[in-house]
Amino acid sequence: MLGRIDHIGVATDDLEGALALYEETLGMPVAHRETVEAQGVEAVLLDVGEGHVELLKPLGPDTPVGKYLEKRGPGLHHVAYAVDDIEDVLSRLSEAGVELIDEEPRVGIRGSRVAFVNPKSTGRVLTEIVEPAHG
Amino acid sequence: MLGRIDHIGVATDDLEGALALYEETLGMPVAHRETVEAQGVEAVLLDVGEGHVELLKPLGPDTPVGKYLEKRGPGLHHVAYAVDDIEDVLSRLSEAGVELIDEEPRVGIRGSRVAFVNPKSTGRVLTEIVEPAHG
Repeated sequence: MLGRIDHIGVATDDLEGALALYEETLGMPVAHRETVEAQGVEAVLLDVGEGHVELLKPLGPDTPVGKYLEKRGPGLHHVAYAVDDIEDVLSRLSEAGVELIDEEPRVGIRGSRVAFVNPKSTGRVLTEIVEPAHG
Repeated sequence: MLGRIDHIGVATDDLEGALALYEETLGMPVAHRETVEAQGVEAVLLDVGEGHVELLKPLGPDTPVGKYLEKRGPGLHHVAYAVDDIEDVLSRLSEAGVELIDEEPRVGIRGSRVAFVNPKSTGRVLTEIVEPAHG
């Protein structure tokens, strides 16, 4: 059902410091940078193998990542799995009793379609399903 | 320097519940199960694409994962990147000023060689470097 680990999301209040670490020290090339207003983040995607690290800096304290930083501090924020058909996966999860944050896919970074699963259903691991943009 | 995301580690106090989620609901096949005494965990590896989810249940409260659960609760514990030559990567990280928990590789799950980076150097993301067993 899930294709592969697409990315891990890292919450940070120091995007430039995180970039210096991942790009310069760890040698991951920056693939994309985008302000995703709908999610309240400035995001940077870096390549590692077929997958990515997604650095997330909140646009303000009242955003989901802003609240996460306030409560938990910086660190691993979520894991995302790539799928071919996000509607199919969401309906199968729903049928299995998994609680979804997003019943319908919404637009994510780089034109992908994404949905989050409620961490209550996943042992407190914030889990994202992502169908990458085609073509 | 880093090949790909090898796995994410998930801390749990309910290994059977986590297995039901990852194996049955999310459809990831179990690849390996091992009690790693040196790390104080019972661990289960499940396949997803080329990578894995590693479920970690502490053997007791005084283990690193036991202390993590006490402090942070269940959830995402670490991310691991696969490398070809772990000594080379550790020496490059060290030269770049990254603080290591393990200066020398130690034996990890499934005969791999692993080392952890100090989260102080990685924006509080517990980061593991893993050289999978060859052959």
